[in-house]
Amino acid sequence: MVFKKVTLIGTSPDGFEEATEDAIDRAEETLENLYWVEVVEQGVKIAGTDGREYQAEVEVAFELED
Amino acid sequence: MVFKKVTLIGTSPDGFEEATEDAIDRAEETLENLYWVEVVEQGVKIAGTDGREYQAEVEVAFELED
Amino acid sequence: MVFKKVTLIGTSPDGFEEATEDAIDRAEETLENLYWVEVVEQGVKIAGTDGREYQAEVEVAFELED
Amino acid sequence: MVFKKVTLIGTSPDGFEEATEDAIDRAEETLENLYWVEVVEQGVKIAGTDGREYQAEVEVAFELED
Amino acid sequence: MVFKKVTLIGTSPDGFEEATEDAIDRAEETLENLYWVEVVEQGVKIAGTDGREYQAEVEVAFELED
Amino acid sequence: MVFKKVTLIGTSPDGFEEATEDAIDRAEETLENLYWVEVVEQGVKIAGTDGREYQAEVEVAFELED
Amino acid sequence: MVFKKVTLIGTSPDGFEEATEDAIDRAEETLENLYWVEVVEQGVKIAGTDGREYQAEVEVAFELED
Amino acid sequence: MVFKKVTLIGTSPDGFEEATEDAIDRAEETLENLYWVEVVEQGVKIAGTDGREYQAEVEVAFELED
Amino acid sequence: MVFKKVTLIGTSPDGFEEATEDAIDRAEETLENLYWVEVVEQGVKIAGTDGREYQAEVEVAFELED
Amino acid sequence: MVFKKVTLIGTSPDGFEEATEDAIDRAEETLENLYWVEVVEQGVKIAGTDGREYQAEVEVAFELED
Amino acid sequence: MVFKKVTLIGTSPDGFEEATEDAIDRAEETLENLYWVEVVEQGVKIAGTDGREYQAEVEVAFELED
Amino acid sequence: MVFKKVTLIGTSPDGFEEATEDAIDRAEETLENLYWVEVVEQGVKIAGTDGREYQAEVEVAFELED
Repeated sequence: MVFKKVTLIGTSPDGFEEATEDAIDRAEETLENLYWVEVVEQGVKIAGTDGREYQAEVEVAFELED
Repeated sequence: MVFKKVTLIGTSPDGFEEATEDAIDRAEETLENLYWVEVVEQGVKIAGTDGREYQAEVEVAFELED
Repeated sequence: MVFKKVTLIGTSPDGFEEATEDAIDRAEETLENLYWVEVVEQGVKIAGTDGREYQAEVEVAFELED
Repeated sequence: MVFKKVTLIGTSPDGFEEATEDAIDRAEETLENLYWVEVVEQGVKIAGTDGREYQAEVEVAFELED
Repeated sequence: MVFKKVTLIGTSPDGFEEATEDAIDRAEETLENLYWVEVVEQGVKIAGTDGREYQAEVEVAFELED
Repeated sequence: MVFKKVTLIGTSPDGFEEATEDAIDRAEETLENLYWVEVVEQGVKIAGTDGREYQAEVEVAFELED
Repeated sequence: MVFKKVTLIGTSPDGFEEATEDAIDRAEETLENLYWVEVVEQGVKIAGTDGREYQAEVEVAFELED
Repeated sequence: MVFKKVTLIGTSPDGFEEATEDAIDRAEETLENLYWVEVVEQGVKIAGTDGREYQAEVEVAFELED
Repeated sequence: MVFKKVTLIGTSPDGFEEATEDAIDRAEETLENLYWVEVVEQGVKIAGTDGREYQAEVEVAFELED
Repeated sequence: MVFKKVTLIGTSPDGFEEATEDAIDRAEETLENLYWVEVVEQGVKIAGTDGREYQAEVEVAFELED
Repeated sequence: MVFKKVTLIGTSPDGFEEATEDAIDRAEETLENLYWVEVVEQGVKIAGTDGREYQAEVEVAFELED
Repeated sequence: MVFKKVTLIGTSPDGFEEATEDAIDRAEETLENLYWVEVVEQGVKIAGTDGREYQAEVEVAFELED
């Protein structure tokens, strides 16, 4: 059993959970067998957006098929 | 005055605050004089759970009695 | 174009987003041209407060005027 | 000459070398021109496995073709 | 569900796996529901021992009972 | 031979050595076979104390009995 | 909006900027919507090359298409 | 003698030295007695700029007047 | 309630406590409502001073007025 | 009593223990009074070797003679 | 002008300054042109010593002669 | 095959590459079989120099002879 990790940055106007979910949702569109997610950075973008944009950089781990 | 820190990991289907509160609630059942909590890691467990499970690893500091 | 970063700690009884917003709101009162915010630490203060107080230490980056 | 790094987690009931080899073996099935591997984390999974499962998170560097 | 982590340092004349196992074995004598182990430091003690002594500092996570 | 590490925070109005000693003294009241101490953080508390209070967060390692 | 980060190592006989550009150029051949690059390590390879080879390990962030 | 450090991010289309100099130049306009500068992060901004923009985040230390 | 942190480096020929106090004393001249101080680096300057000069880099946290 | 630390990288086709031993053996040829060894990095070299080469970067501490 | 850094660990029954001085004194016996010292770790050894022994791991920087 | 790493700080009025080269040049005067160099810190000295002095702290790895 071998896992692979990819690094994604989700965004949301609503909060850190929503930004994290945004990244996981995207991962699930193209990857199967997601196992866990580690949050590696959280931030807020202010300039160049409407209002404030939450950002969550996450590492998504999934199992590789044989 | 001496403090001690213990490391707990709270979990919740709802978000990082709830997972953090989960760990603090548990600490308060057996420890007195809690002072502060530091979040040291946040993650989401996906496989082997219903839906997604937020996790918050925290260090809980409390004052030791004399 | 030169940016400067300052470190603030926002607080809120409600959650990490609210504590982060608290710090950004304060920054906007005295600074212009805010660009982005990086969360560098999250915690909860328990002793000496009513209930639990969420804290978010953030670095706020803004553009310096010429 | 440009290299790319991917992050894999190999597993084995036998030890850290075997878990590391497990990840490298998997990388060699789909990637060519592997150069080196850096171990970034080692652990042991206990619950939900037969016996104990060694895990090695590694970064695998390989040369990109032109 | 709340987990707790404790930090142990296992030792062995034979290698890092054995030192890690030494710490896990000791944890299982007094703790139930062990989940996973993270290796946080590896070393070798040379002075004041017969031969060389492998050491593995590990964090052991286990589930707290309700 | 297995060691365990616990994290304590000693305090003193006099300095970092005294704060460190404060934590070690407390550890010796309830633990036997202390081996070594690593300083992991030093600080000074100013508000809510008489004068300034030195703080030393330390990890205390002791040998577990068989 | 979701971003992905990949880790590349560019090389150049001329300097750190050139090594960084080398990695970015390669990324642009296969990826669209590059946003920013973070330098995570710089080094120089001496043995097994003509002269000295500058190396820049970078994380390249790009926006994923919907 | 007491020093203070401030964090600036200089930018330049030309390279890391120029971005670093950009930040130092700006510091010298408003601060006296600059002593030294530590580079804490280097990056390249690609989207939303003409060409590529080098960025250098630096900590600038200067002596405070009595 | 919002706090701000500034980074100072205090110096003293006598020791780390004195260098830390040096920085705090300076902070109190211009800032009100100091709360706590974190030591982030300790060193000794030898060349270009009489004898040896202790240095303590500290982050000083104070409450911002409304 | 003063100790000195030197950084060595041992190599072996067989595993991390052997690579660590390789570095310690080399240290003992020229240094006396070795005390302890800390593993600071582990990796595997793949290109340019027969098979795979385990590498262990270690810091070796030894007591300086008066 | 090129500097070199060596890592020493000084010891003293009296405190962190004395342990730091112990290492610097030793460095000055064999090295010339010492410039500065960075403290990288502080600890206390308890077992196997009379009373408690302060330890300071330091990096000593000195100028190399041409 | 065993490698050793030494830490040098090169300096130059011209830039980070030149400061890095300065350290490597010095290493080659007394050491053979240099393999690679890792940049661990970059800075600029301003006070007490003519103009600005770039500094590059590097770890130089070389093979030890049998």
